[in-house]
Amino acid sequence: MTKESRGRFFEDFRLGQEIAHATPRTLTAGDQAVYVALTGSRFALHSSDEFARRLGLPQAPLDDLLVFHLVMGKSVPDISVNAVANLGYADGRFGACVFPGDTLAARSTVIGLRETREGKAGIVYLRTVGSNQRGERVLDYVRWVMVQKRDPASPPPDPTVPELPAAVAADRLTLPDRLDLRGWDAETAGSPWRWSDFAAGERIDHVDGMTVEEACHMMATRLYQNTARVHFDARLQKESRFGRRLIFGGHVISIARALSFNGLGAATRVLALNGGRHVAPCFAGDTIYAWSEVLERAELPGRGDAGALRLRMVAVKDRPAADFPGRGADGAYDPSVLLDLDYWALVPR
Amino acid sequence: MTKESRGRFFEDFRLGQEIAHATPRTLTAGDQAVYVALTGSRFALHSSDEFARRLGLPQAPLDDLLVFHLVMGKSVPDISVNAVANLGYADGRFGACVFPGDTLAARSTVIGLRETREGKAGIVYLRTVGSNQRGERVLDYVRWVMVQKRDPASPPPDPTVPELPAAVAADRLTLPDRLDLRGWDAETAGSPWRWSDFAAGERIDHVDGMTVEEACHMMATRLYQNTARVHFDARLQKESRFGRRLIFGGHVISIARALSFNGLGAATRVLALNGGRHVAPCFAGDTIYAWSEVLERAELPGRGDAGALRLRMVAVKDRPAADFPGRGADGAYDPSVLLDLDYWALVPR
Amino acid sequence: MTKESRGRFFEDFRLGQEIAHATPRTLTAGDQAVYVALTGSRFALHSSDEFARRLGLPQAPLDDLLVFHLVMGKSVPDISVNAVANLGYADGRFGACVFPGDTLAARSTVIGLRETREGKAGIVYLRTVGSNQRGERVLDYVRWVMVQKRDPASPPPDPTVPELPAAVAADRLTLPDRLDLRGWDAETAGSPWRWSDFAAGERIDHVDGMTVEEACHMMATRLYQNTARVHFDARLQKESRFGRRLIFGGHVISIARALSFNGLGAATRVLALNGGRHVAPCFAGDTIYAWSEVLERAELPGRGDAGALRLRMVAVKDRPAADFPGRGADGAYDPSVLLDLDYWALVPR
Repeated sequence: MTKESRGRFFEDFRLGQEIAHATPRTLTAGDQAVYVALTGSRFALHSSDEFARRLGLPQAPLDDLLVFHLVMGKSVPDISVNAVANLGYADGRFGACVFPGDTLAARSTVIGLRETREGKAGIVYLRTVGSNQRGERVLDYVRWVMVQKRDPASPPPDPTVPELPAAVAADRLTLPDRLDLRGWDAETAGSPWRWSDFAAGERIDHVDGMTVEEACHMMATRLYQNTARVHFDARLQKESRFGRRLIFGGHVISIARALSFNGLGAATRVLALNGGRHVAPCFAGDTIYAWSEVLERAELPGRGDAGALRLRMVAVKDRPAADFPGRGADGAYDPSVLLDLDYWALVPR
Repeated sequence: MTKESRGRFFEDFRLGQEIAHATPRTLTAGDQAVYVALTGSRFALHSSDEFARRLGLPQAPLDDLLVFHLVMGKSVPDISVNAVANLGYADGRFGACVFPGDTLAARSTVIGLRETREGKAGIVYLRTVGSNQRGERVLDYVRWVMVQKRDPASPPPDPTVPELPAAVAADRLTLPDRLDLRGWDAETAGSPWRWSDFAAGERIDHVDGMTVEEACHMMATRLYQNTARVHFDARLQKESRFGRRLIFGGHVISIARALSFNGLGAATRVLALNGGRHVAPCFAGDTIYAWSEVLERAELPGRGDAGALRLRMVAVKDRPAADFPGRGADGAYDPSVLLDLDYWALVPR
Repeated sequence: MTKESRGRFFEDFRLGQEIAHATPRTLTAGDQAVYVALTGSRFALHSSDEFARRLGLPQAPLDDLLVFHLVMGKSVPDISVNAVANLGYADGRFGACVFPGDTLAARSTVIGLRETREGKAGIVYLRTVGSNQRGERVLDYVRWVMVQKRDPASPPPDPTVPELPAAVAADRLTLPDRLDLRGWDAETAGSPWRWSDFAAGERIDHVDGMTVEEACHMMATRLYQNTARVHFDARLQKESRFGRRLIFGGHVISIARALSFNGLGAATRVLALNGGRHVAPCFAGDTIYAWSEVLERAELPGRGDAGALRLRMVAVKDRPAADFPGRGADGAYDPSVLLDLDYWALVPR
């Protein structure tokens, strides 16, 4: 039997199957430094131990999206090596903060399966849970991917499609233990705005642009130990329909989130990922801009210090976002749009 | 009111104004590792905890220029987003060493203002102070930048131009607490030379060259959380007079300082930045070389273990520095010159 | 006397000469994070503190090859600045694990010297030892390099060529104190295979490919504080026979080792480097693939928990390695081959 793995095909997934993803990872201040160098992230909670201590934490937690990408990266060798496409994610909720020295492990459960119409591939729905060394949940989310069949003639499974919420309900948002925004210092945080300053429908242009280099997106993706070869193998990709390496969608999210500090510096922590769509592929040389829209404002039960904002973050390429390019009247996206992400953020009151 | 910031214009600065720069930053061993990977820095004091302990410190402090760039990076969103040009800096003095885990915050005071002749912009002089979590000064310096006016017709302020020293006086140089060079081990430090081996007028070619890539300078500049868009936005820069991204001048300083180890390995710590000029812009693909000249040798009051050297460090591009290219007889710089920096370094006696 | 160093020439080496390499380095979790971001390394022992603790260690040790490259990098300014070629290494043995916070120093002893036939250069054989702050050996190896003569007319030394083993004998392999693989968890490690599953002659395709960028290989080489200018100076290299920067051979080894996780995830630690040959130069833009062959299986005296595998790792460029390109019947290498490395790895029983 060959020692190397070629990844699972659609036939290798069964409803209810549990998969423990290999090689847990201890995240450190080193990972955070590399993350900052690759994205420019500068949210105060993740940037300053002193700021974090004023909010009740022992030190600055690692960036939420670094945690998300690492947990997802862990699942790639088991789930998506033979994926045709990442179709979406939903119902993502962050739990315990991750601090330097915490070791994250990830597990996934198959919660849905259905063959595609053509019968050459199938869609696998998984709930992935990332936990720390104490078994505390740091993140869980549902992701669905289209995976090739090993044999197009193999019989389809009974189709099962999980019901997924359009967004995480506000009463299911959880705050990390001890985090208390009463100590929030707006000047230090770099944003004068608070929860009540935001209104549904409001749009914010994040102004700045960031050009992505091959070296940068590959370093980011390797940092997450994500092995999807479309990001790394230029020779293989030359033969693909894109003709070149594809930038990991998570890197686009991270760049847009870092840019969003200008306007959303008060969005101190990602509480939940409601859903997201990578509308178009991103390549080295593209310059990313971003804008956000406030979708909804929600109180957090029993919390006078903080509220939640449901935000839509749109990343575009090679044009400023000042006119908020998104979907047109016909529902079609502007050709510049890369990403349309729906998430909940924690904001001081 | 829009949530995003477009940065201050000249009219937004007032004499005596104090600006607390947002998002303090906890620097870690991770930042030092990224700094080494981006610059090749290898001064023993910053490279080895054991070496630092022999000199009385609890562990290796972070590179001085990493601290400088971080403090300056913090000021960018408040000061120089609408800057036309960085005109200079002066009177920069390093104070307490910065160790992994220290959190740096930066504040600036407007100490001078004058409109330019054409009246479309003005020059703002600021003293910026970087402090650690105990309120100890780690660095302060004066910087002046030309900033656009929002409205060219707005009335000019009373012109105030601060008096700035050509160089920090030797008796104002401060050494970090506990640092004692009696334990200096020249073999381990990688340089046999001591303070008395240097003579004013002496020139040193640093021999090696370093080519800069877009990914490298952008990572460095993001590490400092410097958001100046000229370094990151290739699309925007295509429309600029340079046609491409401009490399952060601080990265050029860091590369030159790292190269200067060959010849100046004994220049163990930067004590002061007397002044500097970015003579020409640097772009990705340029190869940086450097040479230094000893300007002055100064005793440090009460210190038998160490003295100061005032050094001029010149960085050039795309040609070796063996013939010390600088200003010609007519005062004009050789076209290869990128940087002409005047600083004080601490050297063992 | 000039302050800068131009490096040793062949005449500067004497048999028995001891050279202490300058600027020891404290390695941290930051270095490990940068290493992961540059290579994609994901061996469980180096990735997870929890995994390492189950095997008796206090936390995850740094990647073995990061240690190797750092120790070798330290020797470059003293040994190979004027090297014409790195000819080989042999008899490399890893000792104590290196943990974040350990400070490594390197020393070399000249163990052989002989002039080349043409008399313009000579071959220097050195044994280099890397030690931690407690004086424990973390690595030692023999390396030989061809170094230019300062003066082609200078008389040759008595030729001395050390006897070197074709491979480290299995009974000379040393395991780090406390490391005990009885706690090995194959699922977490990401590989179901154990020592007895491997057989001499078996070949493993590591499947994935990694394209190397200029920024990535330069960052890696700077991380090791290796100053060899062929890797950094594009202007100088334009005049060389290659016309461009040469990728540090150690980076090719690290990329291939990281790729080898797919198939050799159980090869948890590098125990020894028997020898290696950089068959062809690697340049930015090349895509690296790798395959391995099991050369030999050895028991480790008194150890029921672990055995050793002697492995041959071959890195190729710009073509998959599924057909195991290596030497042809005529002994000549396939033109795609970059590296042919012989090493011992520790594997659970």
